[in-house]
Amino acid sequence: MKGSAKKEDACGANSAGLVEPRSYSFAQPPNELVLESGEKLGPVTLAYETYGKLNEKKTNAILIEHALSGDAHVAGYHTPEDKKPGWWDFMVGPGRPFDTSKYFVICSNVLGGCKGSTGPSSLSPKTGKPYGLDFPVVTVGDWVEAQARLLDHLGIRKLLTVVGGSSGGMQALEWAIRFPDRVKTAIPIATAAKLSAQGIAFNEVSRRAIMSDLKWHGGNYYEGGEPPDAGLALARMIAHITYLSEEGLHRKFGRKLKDREKYGYNFSTEFQVESYLHYQGDVFIRRFDANSYLYITKAIDYFDLTRAGQISLDQVFKAARSKFLVLSFSSDWLYPSRDSKEIVRSLKKNNLEVTYCEINTDYGHDSFLIRNPVMEEMMVNFLAKNLEE
Amino acid sequence: MKGSAKKEDACGANSAGLVEPRSYSFAQPPNELVLESGEKLGPVTLAYETYGKLNEKKTNAILIEHALSGDAHVAGYHTPEDKKPGWWDFMVGPGRPFDTSKYFVICSNVLGGCKGSTGPSSLSPKTGKPYGLDFPVVTVGDWVEAQARLLDHLGIRKLLTVVGGSSGGMQALEWAIRFPDRVKTAIPIATAAKLSAQGIAFNEVSRRAIMSDLKWHGGNYYEGGEPPDAGLALARMIAHITYLSEEGLHRKFGRKLKDREKYGYNFSTEFQVESYLHYQGDVFIRRFDANSYLYITKAIDYFDLTRAGQISLDQVFKAARSKFLVLSFSSDWLYPSRDSKEIVRSLKKNNLEVTYCEINTDYGHDSFLIRNPVMEEMMVNFLAKNLEE
Repeated sequence: MKGSAKKEDACGANSAGLVEPRSYSFAQPPNELVLESGEKLGPVTLAYETYGKLNEKKTNAILIEHALSGDAHVAGYHTPEDKKPGWWDFMVGPGRPFDTSKYFVICSNVLGGCKGSTGPSSLSPKTGKPYGLDFPVVTVGDWVEAQARLLDHLGIRKLLTVVGGSSGGMQALEWAIRFPDRVKTAIPIATAAKLSAQGIAFNEVSRRAIMSDLKWHGGNYYEGGEPPDAGLALARMIAHITYLSEEGLHRKFGRKLKDREKYGYNFSTEFQVESYLHYQGDVFIRRFDANSYLYITKAIDYFDLTRAGQISLDQVFKAARSKFLVLSFSSDWLYPSRDSKEIVRSLKKNNLEVTYCEINTDYGHDSFLIRNPVMEEMMVNFLAKNLEE
Repeated sequence: MKGSAKKEDACGANSAGLVEPRSYSFAQPPNELVLESGEKLGPVTLAYETYGKLNEKKTNAILIEHALSGDAHVAGYHTPEDKKPGWWDFMVGPGRPFDTSKYFVICSNVLGGCKGSTGPSSLSPKTGKPYGLDFPVVTVGDWVEAQARLLDHLGIRKLLTVVGGSSGGMQALEWAIRFPDRVKTAIPIATAAKLSAQGIAFNEVSRRAIMSDLKWHGGNYYEGGEPPDAGLALARMIAHITYLSEEGLHRKFGRKLKDREKYGYNFSTEFQVESYLHYQGDVFIRRFDANSYLYITKAIDYFDLTRAGQISLDQVFKAARSKFLVLSFSSDWLYPSRDSKEIVRSLKKNNLEVTYCEINTDYGHDSFLIRNPVMEEMMVNFLAKNLEE
């Protein structure tokens, strides 16, 4: 609480500071990683970063799971010249909620990503060329399996907590079920036990935006061609609308015009909200690979703890042994509180210790990426209590 | 009520039957229509259809306003071979809510459309070639002005009612303010006094889908080239998600797979909801022009009765003289009930007679296009009462 209540600048005294990108490679042929699909993948590299120090008993490890467009660079800076810190910087650092003077924090880029982990833009050992669409489809389960190998490598048997928002929350849930003895606590945020039909629909139109771009070339654009920037930007713009609430958009932009006082009666960018979306698209294409976008959204589509209703959620959580802190946001319509409440009900039916809070905010699904005293305080208390126990 | 309660097949005894497409041309140069932008447009043709007969006193005319992708063909069939009737067929016919044995029903295609009215695919009198993006940007006000010319032509001074859903509802509101003495009653459904920031955002990504398609060619694809089908289909898919509710999608599709029992672990269409969206996109490109989609969404973006807050909505409705029936749908998140309630409050402040109902349904924004006994009964009663008065 103390940490989160202070108002340091991100670059200030409580920054995680300089952090070194790391990577771990495993699953060298013929010992490839066997994926949920049955396909084999190897070698596999996971890009990761760590913050703070593992204590002697190895009881203070926190695994942070990133969402769709995130990466391993969760906090701090790679070089003193970096203009922006990692994506969850306000959460990680000495005195911050994931207090690096107490905890050892780990984050790795998901399999299929484009920020250092093996993905469709990596070279296939068979052809020596980028995988493209020859890369196998991976799942949230595969992401978590790969992360377990990384924890083995780091000598961590059990996590103090696994935490993430959105598809990061899906990974936290998957961890708690797949490796119940390795997860003391889990903090799934703004997530669901399975992606909704609406979520699949938005993912599919985003993929269609990429695949309709003639520059996509069936995924073979790495060598010689230009990447499908227009399609990827459009995919991001579509998705970005779903991350914000109608109220939030109204408060931030309303119907305000950009750099003009009157309608131009043409098809240029006129409203601030249009300009904002274009900016989001333009920034995204500089940092993300279109094929990775396809693979990651597909993994999210496939996520369904009930295995298409074959088992009930109550049965699913029978396997769990962790304590849970479940958080949702009142204005999140992509992963509405209803979905979190469904998780909470099933956890409780299994007599698992669970704290739930629906946080009141108009920032929509993206709320977990924005400073919020309630969110931070709940995590601080939950972690402190469970570190001691 | 009787009409709506009966369960005739659309092709049955209560069908509007065969209807003839008509058109009216006006604004011949040099007497062009002066648009809100200041640009002039002429000649102007409006495609329209009528159902039933105008009574002697000319007091039974109902103007139906279509939404984004609608057209003048509101009910009945053009030929006996037609497989589908008009877009609001269940509402229009003898014994149906807009009872053609009592009322004279008119519907015209909006200016800028592609179903017979002058639009970007029409030939420019200056060049003899399709306008493309040389077509001037039109507004909801321009749509209504053109419709007023059509009513003059038909000899109708005053409408019994003007009714429409979504942007059709915007036109109903515009009519009530622009021509208060010509509108006895108005029925705006699932609409708003101004498009929300979220609405602008979704329209802009839809436009971007079209304009990013390399086949769009700056709007010049009519002669020789192929139309931007992929972009238009994608625009429709994006929009279609916003027309449905999350609950409705869950009930209809959930996470059900299409023609398979297990995940395919590839990028083919797997979930039923994906297949449904693709179908919606594919059907749409056969009946709609991409440039018209740009112009119509732009008109909707520009719609703001408060003129960017220059006047309050209370002041706006000072001009109105009509009686109102305002309808919204509980699961409509694109034009939420909040927006309708805002209209109702301002109407009441101006001592206008207004009936409001939020109809409970999970069909989302598209609810007005689906049979609903509450909606139909309210309209039947409202019309009957106001025809008598």
